[in-house]
Amino acid sequence: MITRKEQREAQRRAAAEFRRIGFAISERECENIEVVDFGLGRLEIEGVQILTLVHTGRISVKLLCLFPDQTEPEHWHPPVGDDPGKEETVRLLDGTLRFYVEGEDTLSLGAIPAVSAAYYRLRHEIVMKPGDQLLCKPGQKHWFQAGRSGAILFSFSSVARDETDCFANPGITRATKIADG
Amino acid sequence: MITRKEQREAQRRAAAEFRRIGFAISERECENIEVVDFGLGRLEIEGVQILTLVHTGRISVKLLCLFPDQTEPEHWHPPVGDDPGKEETVRLLDGTLRFYVEGEDTLSLGAIPAVSAAYYRLRHEIVMKPGDQLLCKPGQKHWFQAGRSGAILFSFSSVARDETDCFANPGITRATKIADG
Repeated sequence: MITRKEQREAQRRAAAEFRRIGFAISERECENIEVVDFGLGRLEIEGVQILTLVHTGRISVKLLCLFPDQTEPEHWHPPVGDDPGKEETVRLLDGTLRFYVEGEDTLSLGAIPAVSAAYYRLRHEIVMKPGDQLLCKPGQKHWFQAGRSGAILFSFSSVARDETDCFANPGITRATKIADG
Repeated sequence: MITRKEQREAQRRAAAEFRRIGFAISERECENIEVVDFGLGRLEIEGVQILTLVHTGRISVKLLCLFPDQTEPEHWHPPVGDDPGKEETVRLLDGTLRFYVEGEDTLSLGAIPAVSAAYYRLRHEIVMKPGDQLLCKPGQKHWFQAGRSGAILFSFSSVARDETDCFANPGITRATKIADG
């Protein structure tokens, strides 16, 4: 849970980051930036700010802002009905991104959030710089973390069904609760 | 048809535009920028430069550069097999874009390419500025033209099958021929 004030502050901060790199967004889009704390209540550590640009029955495009060292927890996109699961291409626009998938343990730069360490099982590290992109196949487990200057990235995908995402941490709820205050 | 030299020059120019707005691309991506003259041999008037970022069996993402006043001719994306046709969201990143669809004739800023005037039948003008986006439904006819400072735009879509695109001008061929020289 985060407060309305925390939500607005994170929206403003993410919007400022998008505009800093010259990506024009409207005031309405700024207000629609989704601030996600994964129900953990420690947004700065495990959280993400998402501006959904396109969401039709066929594709989704999201612009993500991660604050410095902020982490999107380990998750995957399962099959849903006839859909084999979300196929997602991530492309970094700004900052650095540490991306983790299954494979040999090469974790070097990343910092596992201590309080949730048991739920970060993937340790194969891919360090991305602006212009780098990679494809996450349906069902492929992954987590990622911004470097010290944060990260701005695109997620280009088949239709997103966020509510069906699976997380390694069973304490996570994808829908963020906003408290008054 | 364009020459190899014209192709390389247009690639370099488009790559410089992408980098000017801070969109990082690799040298390999620069070499993969598609220079499209629609088989008309007048690239500066009717043509487009396209960097395909994502092309899977499910989605396509393209970054387009139009030089000043350059025009992408009237076309639409027809059904192909089970696919009802490409569903495409266009978002302008830089410059201005004049976008034309069916509807009341409101053409004001646009300039119809004189030599092909008969093939520009849509005159309902939407003037886009950076941050604006619109959705082209499958089969919806459209054409667009950059303003005086050019235009850089995203096309986010269901899978693109460029070779099946239909054009108002029957003289158009989607695949650009490159001549030595």
